[in-house]
Amino acid sequence: MTVPTSFRHVHAFASADADDVARLGGKGSGLARMTSLGLPVPPGFVVDTGVCKEVLSNGQLPEEIWEEVLGALRDLEALTGRTFGSGPSPLLLSVRSGAAVSMPGMMDTVLDLGASRYLIDDLAAWADDTHFAYDARRRLLQMFGSVVLGITDDRFQRILRATRAEAGVRSDTELDAGHLQKVCDRFEAAIAADDLVVPEDPLLQLRQAITAVYASWNTPRAIHYRKSNGISDDVGTAATVQMMVFGDLGGNSGTGVCFTRNPMTGENTAYGDYLPQAQGEDVVAGLRNTMSLDDLAARHPAVHSSLVSIMDHLEHTTTDMCDIEFTVEREQLFILQTRVGKRSAAAAVRIAVEMAEAGLISFEEAIRRVDPASLEQLGRPAIDRSLATEPTLSGIGASPGAAQGIAVFDPDRAEALAGQGLTVILVREETTPDDIHGMTAAAGILTSQGGKTSHAAVVARGMGRPAVTGAAALEIEGTIAHVGDVRIAEGDEITIDGSTGDVFVGLTPLVEPEPLPELDRLLEWADEVRTLGVRANADNGPDAARARAAGAEGIGLARTEHMFMGERLGIVQSIILTDDPDERERRLDELTATQIGDFEDLLREMDGLPVIVRLLDPPLHEFLPGSVEIGREMLERVRAGEPTDDLETLDRQVRRWSEENPMLGLRGVRLGLVIDDIYRLQIEAALEAVRRRVASGGDPRLELMIPLVSTSEELTAMRSVVDHAVESINKISDSPIHVEVGTMIELPRAALTADEIAAQADFFSFGTNDLTQMTFGLSRDDAEGAFLGHYLDRGILPKDPFRTLDVKGVGRLIQLAVAAGRAAKPNLPIGVCGEHGGDPDSIDFFLSQGLDYVSVSPPRVPVARLAAAQAELRAFDRGSVLS
Amino acid sequence: MTVPTSFRHVHAFASADADDVARLGGKGSGLARMTSLGLPVPPGFVVDTGVCKEVLSNGQLPEEIWEEVLGALRDLEALTGRTFGSGPSPLLLSVRSGAAVSMPGMMDTVLDLGASRYLIDDLAAWADDTHFAYDARRRLLQMFGSVVLGITDDRFQRILRATRAEAGVRSDTELDAGHLQKVCDRFEAAIAADDLVVPEDPLLQLRQAITAVYASWNTPRAIHYRKSNGISDDVGTAATVQMMVFGDLGGNSGTGVCFTRNPMTGENTAYGDYLPQAQGEDVVAGLRNTMSLDDLAARHPAVHSSLVSIMDHLEHTTTDMCDIEFTVEREQLFILQTRVGKRSAAAAVRIAVEMAEAGLISFEEAIRRVDPASLEQLGRPAIDRSLATEPTLSGIGASPGAAQGIAVFDPDRAEALAGQGLTVILVREETTPDDIHGMTAAAGILTSQGGKTSHAAVVARGMGRPAVTGAAALEIEGTIAHVGDVRIAEGDEITIDGSTGDVFVGLTPLVEPEPLPELDRLLEWADEVRTLGVRANADNGPDAARARAAGAEGIGLARTEHMFMGERLGIVQSIILTDDPDERERRLDELTATQIGDFEDLLREMDGLPVIVRLLDPPLHEFLPGSVEIGREMLERVRAGEPTDDLETLDRQVRRWSEENPMLGLRGVRLGLVIDDIYRLQIEAALEAVRRRVASGGDPRLELMIPLVSTSEELTAMRSVVDHAVESINKISDSPIHVEVGTMIELPRAALTADEIAAQADFFSFGTNDLTQMTFGLSRDDAEGAFLGHYLDRGILPKDPFRTLDVKGVGRLIQLAVAAGRAAKPNLPIGVCGEHGGDPDSIDFFLSQGLDYVSVSPPRVPVARLAAAQAELRAFDRGSVLS
Repeated sequence: MTVPTSFRHVHAFASADADDVARLGGKGSGLARMTSLGLPVPPGFVVDTGVCKEVLSNGQLPEEIWEEVLGALRDLEALTGRTFGSGPSPLLLSVRSGAAVSMPGMMDTVLDLGASRYLIDDLAAWADDTHFAYDARRRLLQMFGSVVLGITDDRFQRILRATRAEAGVRSDTELDAGHLQKVCDRFEAAIAADDLVVPEDPLLQLRQAITAVYASWNTPRAIHYRKSNGISDDVGTAATVQMMVFGDLGGNSGTGVCFTRNPMTGENTAYGDYLPQAQGEDVVAGLRNTMSLDDLAARHPAVHSSLVSIMDHLEHTTTDMCDIEFTVEREQLFILQTRVGKRSAAAAVRIAVEMAEAGLISFEEAIRRVDPASLEQLGRPAIDRSLATEPTLSGIGASPGAAQGIAVFDPDRAEALAGQGLTVILVREETTPDDIHGMTAAAGILTSQGGKTSHAAVVARGMGRPAVTGAAALEIEGTIAHVGDVRIAEGDEITIDGSTGDVFVGLTPLVEPEPLPELDRLLEWADEVRTLGVRANADNGPDAARARAAGAEGIGLARTEHMFMGERLGIVQSIILTDDPDERERRLDELTATQIGDFEDLLREMDGLPVIVRLLDPPLHEFLPGSVEIGREMLERVRAGEPTDDLETLDRQVRRWSEENPMLGLRGVRLGLVIDDIYRLQIEAALEAVRRRVASGGDPRLELMIPLVSTSEELTAMRSVVDHAVESINKISDSPIHVEVGTMIELPRAALTADEIAAQADFFSFGTNDLTQMTFGLSRDDAEGAFLGHYLDRGILPKDPFRTLDVKGVGRLIQLAVAAGRAAKPNLPIGVCGEHGGDPDSIDFFLSQGLDYVSVSPPRVPVARLAAAQAELRAFDRGSVLS
Repeated sequence: MTVPTSFRHVHAFASADADDVARLGGKGSGLARMTSLGLPVPPGFVVDTGVCKEVLSNGQLPEEIWEEVLGALRDLEALTGRTFGSGPSPLLLSVRSGAAVSMPGMMDTVLDLGASRYLIDDLAAWADDTHFAYDARRRLLQMFGSVVLGITDDRFQRILRATRAEAGVRSDTELDAGHLQKVCDRFEAAIAADDLVVPEDPLLQLRQAITAVYASWNTPRAIHYRKSNGISDDVGTAATVQMMVFGDLGGNSGTGVCFTRNPMTGENTAYGDYLPQAQGEDVVAGLRNTMSLDDLAARHPAVHSSLVSIMDHLEHTTTDMCDIEFTVEREQLFILQTRVGKRSAAAAVRIAVEMAEAGLISFEEAIRRVDPASLEQLGRPAIDRSLATEPTLSGIGASPGAAQGIAVFDPDRAEALAGQGLTVILVREETTPDDIHGMTAAAGILTSQGGKTSHAAVVARGMGRPAVTGAAALEIEGTIAHVGDVRIAEGDEITIDGSTGDVFVGLTPLVEPEPLPELDRLLEWADEVRTLGVRANADNGPDAARARAAGAEGIGLARTEHMFMGERLGIVQSIILTDDPDERERRLDELTATQIGDFEDLLREMDGLPVIVRLLDPPLHEFLPGSVEIGREMLERVRAGEPTDDLETLDRQVRRWSEENPMLGLRGVRLGLVIDDIYRLQIEAALEAVRRRVASGGDPRLELMIPLVSTSEELTAMRSVVDHAVESINKISDSPIHVEVGTMIELPRAALTADEIAAQADFFSFGTNDLTQMTFGLSRDDAEGAFLGHYLDRGILPKDPFRTLDVKGVGRLIQLAVAAGRAAKPNLPIGVCGEHGGDPDSIDFFLSQGLDYVSVSPPRVPVARLAAAQAELRAFDRGSVLS
């Protein structure tokens, strides 16, 4: 065996340092590692990433690097005993890209370099196969033509189509040598028509191909991919030059892909596809049906057995499930590539847990292995992608999971039809608190407007209903919707995929999730690791029960406004609109009675655990119809010649409550102080629920949370109302009650004056959604449609601050508030009840700031448990929890 | 002369420490001081403020204090040679309240104590005047009855009315002794009817009166006054007990009030009123016509001459204009009270300047003496309060000064009628950018909605037009308005007072301001003292000229949106609404051409001084009609059977631009980045204006300001647009231009990341209005009508944060931003262009933070010059400019 020469930027697989991924790129490093493990890898060498920048700026490979390539090529010829570009044992080469960070399919590859016209006869003689020789040349012309010369692949595809038609065959593999020769001639003619040429000199082919592979770093799609995935443009790619092996040298050859475990289910059995008489691209193209690994075993037992032992070897070496590309060239197995295999969310959990239990990886590593966000969809059915057709339209995947049923355009109808046992998808332009009963009754929600935090999205996530929002192509008029020419009437079946935003007309096949015992084990391990508490945002008994079952350690946020909706909306509206104080008092009493039950449910389900109830947050006009809505109805009435007096009265009243900027208006504690009876009703109902729970032997731990506090005086005023109410209950009750009173920190001023506010608060809870809106001066709903996307595309914002906490700005306020709050009250409990509570990057920050818990919607409780454990491990890696 | 005894809480005027205002209260201290100056003050003593709390909590004067009072009373009898409550030389006493802080008219007084029934004959004999004796008793009964016994004064007034009617006279002074005796009997009967009694024992009268005077500290109106004026409830009042002297002992007696200088004009001549045969209350009641001081001189030359020498003495002692109450008892002059006199804004300036020039006070003291806020109204006519009737309705005084003219309800009509030479008051529910031409044409603006920063208020202040906003009682329908039963039609004359918010139907007499040369001198002195720069917010040439004449050192804020209004609104609307790119381009060019002229005007007027031009700030829908407006018109059309197609199209387009929370939406730099041609047009127009000014030999100093920046990346992106535009001009121009690019700091995130932003900015300007809104999460317009007043009343907010900067919250952000900005760029110029720039408390803070300048509307430039000088003096007093 020849010892490879040592170069500066060119590294033979056999002598390269496989750990130096930064220089070799992922693919080069993998090939070097497999080579060093003694696996049957076709030999070759890597031109490293250090060359990339220079090639990109000069447009060609520097001379001294080319000299190194020629040296490595000499070594390769010596090693293989073949010659690049000449017989009798001709060497063909591939050139592939490969950056340190995986960018699957983003960059280019050129195969069969060296298959010049003059070599056809030698190739045919070597392989004893003329068809093979022309096919190799055909592939060279096509890939060199498109990747190096920049001719669109369409041109080549047209020629292939025409030739297939002439030959009367359906696939390229059915073309015989004569046809392929004609294809080669036609390809050459097409290239010449553009005044271009594939050089006959194989060295020129190689040099141009390497240059082109480097250049593919800067294709628009690669740039876009890096931007979307946060990969730096400076990393650069390497180019891997490798001996071609051939899966298309007759029936004893073939090519395949295998996984060391089942990537769909995680089951610990090898899983893969094999295609005889084929090259790698043919598998990917999916034109022919593949065989299973069992078929391979039957056909080539020796090959199968070495593949199995290689799989075993690789999985133990990488300590993860591997995805392996292999080729069989006349009964000889070659491994072309291996990497950590992609897997479904369920498989990720099962593989991690089983590997940890088998001692292959640590429990901590198992925790790290699973993407927390993926857990959310585990409990929900999904579209069966293997059977799905093209979606009819697309919107924003606002609440994951798939749902299907009949389209209904009105919440009352939705409730009625669901009551008759029908499965309903509620379809609306957007939803309002008026629609809650319809949303509750529906299996899924589809809106044509709104983003990830529209009313529909937030409520659907909270309810665990799949939802697609902002499907702008959907035009709804009354009980009919149109998507271009497609018409959807009430009762038509539709399917929505809240994970992807896809919407299908008709019933697309779904797959139901299997129960996953490994998940429980993983989350138990996570609970042992994490220090950050996890609570749930839940507004009613069933949600609270679901959250507790999912592992929530209390309720971090019960939004009482949700208790004002549905059938109670009428009561709430008359409270707001009536001018008669007696009527108001009566209606308030009515509402109090129902609220007591709501609070009892929550406290019962969370007995012994903290339950944070937030007093009314939204402005009152959210419970009223809108002026525009009323205007439309008025117009209709006038057109129909009907009287409009009642609407005019309503309009006047509605307008009295309307605000320019409702988010900055009369809501939260302001409402509680100015229109005090609604808060008083809520406080009384909550305390009465506590009293009843205590009286019946429960352990209610109510904490009342005051929203939108900006000054300590607001909190002082509200807390004295609560304290008085508690006193008067305890004066006459046998079993005294106790409640805590705390506040949201969701306005910059609250964060800036947290010391004063802490003196009045038993706890803090950061409302990071509002805090982000106020800190940026940005209404999320307005921004998402209008310019947030533009900002993210241009890199003006690195990430969506409503998903990943803006540490520099909003985070600074949180830091100031925690420091000031704890300085005033050292053991002040502090949590987060915004959507950021479930985001891993944000959780890292919350942990680093010493927060006590995050609170998330019930389906995200497992997500948060796992993410909190991962945050803990990352903090441990950084050497400290408090950065 | 008897040496007064020394007590713990009771202090004779002659021996009290006049400087101890905290213990003696203002009135007590003044009387002690005058006594020590040897002025003829009726003797007496003070029960000090240290007793107040105890009296308030126990409801009576403590026994040991009463012992002290009795001791002081013995001394008083010895000093005066009279006896309290017995003949032949009876002593009557007054008890008055007096806190350390002046609360004029807020607390109670009881006079003529000792005038018991049994003493009538002795009193009549002593005075040789039965009428006097009964009148003294009548006053005692009435004041004791109402103040001590709590009987409403109405009861006594009814009896007086009835008796006057029986006697056939019009005023109480015309009642003879017999009538007065009958009044006394009836008063006693009325008091007895409530089971109450005025004790005959004079000591009991005194004790109860002192207690009642202390108790008046806690009357609702006193509490309210303290709250509105920021006076602590803990200060407490003192009670002053003093010998009564009588101005009603015949023609040689009388009572008066005088000022050492004219309080209306400031002229250095004594000014006052004298009423013969009267007690103090009679002057205040204004029932009889008073005499001038010259009349007094003619009548009692000796009295007049001692009064003049006392005035002289007092003014030199207090080194300020004094307000003196005096009584003449049978040719003998008594001084009852003196204090620093209230004066008009003009008088304040003139008096301060003349006193400084006369060497009576220092120049610095002159600067301190004038309330900066009062200067704003100096240039404007005012309602002649001496002639004014009751206002028809009241709103918010939004832009000071008075205006009168015919009411017009439509901006087009306003422009047309003003064009015909009529003086117009524009009356609207609220104004929008559409109304600018009407506002420009009007002499004043009246709206039924909106607060101090409504569009109407802000624009009116900027224009220097008086305005009353939020006059909620005004119901406008078409071209008619109603205030209760009062109807105002187009063309009816009305008068508005933008200082007080009063509105009068008809032409109430106005007073025109005199030119005031002393003001220029005062402001020159102020300029020598201050270090804080003063710039103006001005949007057009005439405003800039006015601002420069008023002393502005540049433009701190030119709002370019104002250049998009009036006749240009049509162009702007078609830019927004057209779908035709060519049409859009044409309209943009049209707008560019007009903007160049706008910018040239500004730069010409401010040649050599900095001109900060802010690029477009508001969202685009502010330039479009509202959905509700369109809805109304549609309804009218439908009712009239007219087609509505055009309106429906407009409505769709308008709704495409509408936002939930426009303040947090697509505006400022966001607009500049997303819909980039409008910013590009503004930048090009501004640079072209600079080029033209340079070409014609001017010295233009343009600074472009980017609004609503929340990330440094936004500023980087915009600044590169400006830099490129400058480069391409300089490439082809002979006279190269230069502009600075800076940003508003008006979002919390900008303040929190000021270091990064400073790296991209040539200057910072705090937009304290938006910064306050975002920090509190509070829309000013929504809050002012709905709950800000409630918050101020309850003390939840100590001051309106939109008038006086919230130092704790918003101030903290400013502090962080200045520190971070200057750390990144040590000489970064930083100013303030919000309304707080003109508020003295806020200016103190800005100065302490090392800011370079404030920028205010042109009429407030003098205000800011003076306030900045005062801030400097206060900072000097505190020992440091940088706290």
